Amino acid sequence: MIKELHFEIAEFQARLTAVKKEMATRGIKILVLSEPPNQNYLTGYNAYSFYTPQMVIVSLDHDEPIWVGRLMDRVSAAMTTYLADQNIRAYPETHVHSSVLSAYAFMADIVKEVGGEKACIGVEMGGYYYSARAHEDLTRALPLAKFVDADLLVGWVRLIKSPTEIAIMRQAGQLADVAMQRVINMVEAGVRECDIAAAIYHQQVSGRPEFGGDYPSCPPDLCIGERSIAPHAAWTDEPLPISSVVNLELSGCRHRYQVNLSRPIVVGKPSTAFQKLSEIVVEGLNAGLESVRPGRTCSEVFSAFSQALARHRIEKESRIGYPTGIAFPPASGERTASIRKGDETVLQPGMVFHMIPGLWLDNIGITISQSFAVTDRGFEPLTMTARKLFVK
Amino acid sequence: MIKELHFEIAEFQARLTAVKKEMATRGIKILVLSEPPNQNYLTGYNAYSFYTPQMVIVSLDHDEPIWVGRLMDRVSAAMTTYLADQNIRAYPETHVHSSVLSAYAFMADIVKEVGGEKACIGVEMGGYYYSARAHEDLTRALPLAKFVDADLLVGWVRLIKSPTEIAIMRQAGQLADVAMQRVINMVEAGVRECDIAAAIYHQQVSGRPEFGGDYPSCPPDLCIGERSIAPHAAWTDEPLPISSVVNLELSGCRHRYQVNLSRPIVVGKPSTAFQKLSEIVVEGLNAGLESVRPGRTCSEVFSAFSQALARHRIEKESRIGYPTGIAFPPASGERTASIRKGDETVLQPGMVFHMIPGLWLDNIGITISQSFAVTDRGFEPLTMTARKLFVK
Repeated sequence: MIKELHFEIAEFQARLTAVKKEMATRGIKILVLSEPPNQNYLTGYNAYSFYTPQMVIVSLDHDEPIWVGRLMDRVSAAMTTYLADQNIRAYPETHVHSSVLSAYAFMADIVKEVGGEKACIGVEMGGYYYSARAHEDLTRALPLAKFVDADLLVGWVRLIKSPTEIAIMRQAGQLADVAMQRVINMVEAGVRECDIAAAIYHQQVSGRPEFGGDYPSCPPDLCIGERSIAPHAAWTDEPLPISSVVNLELSGCRHRYQVNLSRPIVVGKPSTAFQKLSEIVVEGLNAGLESVRPGRTCSEVFSAFSQALARHRIEKESRIGYPTGIAFPPASGERTASIRKGDETVLQPGMVFHMIPGLWLDNIGITISQSFAVTDRGFEPLTMTARKLFVK
Repeated sequence: MIKELHFEIAEFQARLTAVKKEMATRGIKILVLSEPPNQNYLTGYNAYSFYTPQMVIVSLDHDEPIWVGRLMDRVSAAMTTYLADQNIRAYPETHVHSSVLSAYAFMADIVKEVGGEKACIGVEMGGYYYSARAHEDLTRALPLAKFVDADLLVGWVRLIKSPTEIAIMRQAGQLADVAMQRVINMVEAGVRECDIAAAIYHQQVSGRPEFGGDYPSCPPDLCIGERSIAPHAAWTDEPLPISSVVNLELSGCRHRYQVNLSRPIVVGKPSTAFQKLSEIVVEGLNAGLESVRPGRTCSEVFSAFSQALARHRIEKESRIGYPTGIAFPPASGERTASIRKGDETVLQPGMVFHMIPGLWLDNIGITISQSFAVTDRGFEPLTMTARKLFVK
């Protein structure tokens, strides 16, 4: 059978060791991981199967994690993980969307098997794939266990990327760049919004001659004309008018590692106010980026940004950045650190952020962003698209 | 401000009336809906914002539902819903990915405001966007209320589509057809897998000259060569070999209504066994489709299918179909009825299913599917691609 592993087994083992160390510190014996990025991080698993119950179980007493999913996805686990066969478990197809059979009860039996009946069990309470039902079924099936919230336990370990991960993210950044360039080339009056979105997808996935891309964890945000102030609006099939603003956020995704990129593109002549606003955003963005170095906090980076804005008497309250890395739908950002006031996370080499200061003033909005890795001395940009307003 | 509503307000009101009737039957005074398809169904809301907490609250005593989401998405609510301004509520940006501020506590205050402090409150326990954290925070903030599981309450109402919904799904089916045709045209030895995936996305979204498509709720399943038995595998950037099997499932999505379509495409000469298997699948599929009519049950349709297979001494246990309609990531299927043994759901005109009998025998797998609407007398196919194995 083919094996598709993008990391050395030693790297998976190092990740597991770091996670187990944190588990031990918190007194957690067994970790039940519902989040696809965490499952991918610790095992390599990659298939679009997380819309049915799927968990990775880490036990302090067990050498390898255990993947548990749907029977028909077992083969994907064999192909994409480094796990031994006995650590790949599957519940029968009869459990899928059943109102009587619980896949979580099946998983609880495996937790018992690895000594978890009366253990302290960590679960990801705030995860996208840990539903109220999952928690209810698991706690009911394990009445003697103690459940604790281990949300983001793996997330904080993932925050610092290895050199191999950074290398993959450089490729993801290149995918974002070629997608953005394609849009800049094609945008003009009369082009339908849906055709712009289609070209983005095509370029993200087709990628470059040397390597292609994965599906992104979220659609491009294509905020056009009146919808330029609606940051997560859906596109339409209307043609672009003679004069309009396209606020675009897209991404490149390589081996599930995602790098985001946002730029405004104006068809026609931008208003003076919009041009001016774009320059202020870039000034703030650059000030934030130049302040990045190991030892600084996220809050200090935010301060550098907001001081630059303050010179133009603009205040911004909301966060201007979030970490990215492994991404599965629905989200692209990791939910750990934020570049915002009061976030005391200390920057370390290997962290990757998407700094995206969006300014929405009255009826105009603009975002110009930069994804970067923290290096020994500063930041490494992961995309090369110029930080500016593009005018067509 | 622009308004983007794809249905008459009377249709939204009829949906709400049907939901309230079911609430009253179950003794539920307030329904807190976490699922994006249900939010879209009852209000029209459409933006890619559900990765942060977002709910629609339906109260028996309140004329309109109340949308509650993130501040920056308020404008999307104003643009895409029919709701009055006072029924669009937003929590501050400070609550996003915060470890101290809970958006769900904010929502609980709105529940209290509409008389829910001591009410019977329905929540979607098994929903994709109702996390264990959401349930914990809501129940803590509303200690005097009684929480009951209302998972799929709206789903069962959604199961029967209106004529307007069916008309949109016909367009979605056309989008699936053009995407499949594009793949059939381009597949040949040497084409990279990622370029096939890219072409699918491009065609799904670019659509047709008359109308474009939305982002699909899930990536295409492109199961190639050895991965033809891994139904949800990711694609690679490897070129197709001289001889291989492409098992493809894709979709068309229009105004968030999704229609799925699956076909196998063989490069080179298919093996006799594979050709034979494809004919058996089509025979079973056609037998299932011909058995569709109002009054029959899902289980009876499954029987018609499995009797056809039994003539070839093949048994299939797992379900062969699920309803589709409004789709948001991560899933494309509704989680209500299943076409499988023992499902006693009675077919009614307006129901839409994707019948997708996948056969995986040893190291070969094949799926040939048909999306259809139940009509007064039988079924209406929603895609027109021939039900057969395609050979290139």
